[in-house]
Amino acid sequence: MKKLLLTGAAVLALGATTTKAENAAEKEKAMNVQKYDQSKGFEGPEDYFTGKVKVDEPFKSGDEFNDYQGAMVNFEAGARTAWHTHPKGQTLYIVSGEGRVQSEGEAIKTVRAGDVVWFPANEKHWHGAAPDSAMSHLAIQSPDEEGEVVNWMEHVTDEQYLRESE
Amino acid sequence: MKKLLLTGAAVLALGATTTKAENAAEKEKAMNVQKYDQSKGFEGPEDYFTGKVKVDEPFKSGDEFNDYQGAMVNFEAGARTAWHTHPKGQTLYIVSGEGRVQSEGEAIKTVRAGDVVWFPANEKHWHGAAPDSAMSHLAIQSPDEEGEVVNWMEHVTDEQYLRESE
Repeated sequence: MKKLLLTGAAVLALGATTTKAENAAEKEKAMNVQKYDQSKGFEGPEDYFTGKVKVDEPFKSGDEFNDYQGAMVNFEAGARTAWHTHPKGQTLYIVSGEGRVQSEGEAIKTVRAGDVVWFPANEKHWHGAAPDSAMSHLAIQSPDEEGEVVNWMEHVTDEQYLRESE
Repeated sequence: MKKLLLTGAAVLALGATTTKAENAAEKEKAMNVQKYDQSKGFEGPEDYFTGKVKVDEPFKSGDEFNDYQGAMVNFEAGARTAWHTHPKGQTLYIVSGEGRVQSEGEAIKTVRAGDVVWFPANEKHWHGAAPDSAMSHLAIQSPDEEGEVVNWMEHVTDEQYLRESE
């Protein structure tokens, strides 16, 4: 999608005719293959993560819907999100490695490739790699009426993170 | 989610008190970890697929939303879906292998791990493995007002499938 939008912008900057702009708009409604591009990934910001985290491949359902958004998130061993909530919940699909997930007031749970985690709306939680293993998951969440998908809170301390996991 | 629903049903079958039923309902609103269970996967039905296809890990956003549904779909080399459309479009996240995707009237495109594909609403298309490589993707789609996520059509013939891919 990003590529097509840039193309549209470039066309406009060059003083495109209406026909070209219309073609660009039409193209956005066709199948789009977003090729994997490692250089487009970005590091998970310090305010919201502990340890080394890379966010890859952000995507969303087409502009006409915006039903959900997602990204691949790669945590190095020991890395994790801060505590946070999602206004419309979140699905994690664990793609590789071993990780930890926890909702506030519950035990930490160990997750592995193929596991699927659902966090309900507004449930305070965190997720990340295991202390001795990297973990990658696809995260999928829906925006609320204001377009928000997450509310970030305080970091997960080492003491909280290193508790026994089920 | 499924496990929790079964638990709820079992509780009711045993003549549960209201309190227990309420607890079960509350539990559905808590974090849920769906552990990977190969035995729960099912083969893609012949009517909708060509070749050997296994569907694993169906999931959906929580019952209170049903914003999106998904599953991991594993295609052996040469296997593919039939032609079909999705009323609210579809996202594919390619997890492993090499595959092919095509929207009607466009060229076949080759996809690999990390690529993300978006098919707009009602666009006739198919997806599958490459002729000489397996492919697995996570498929994500949103239900329409009637709860439908897909409309199946005719099979992709060998001649259609084996055309050159970009």
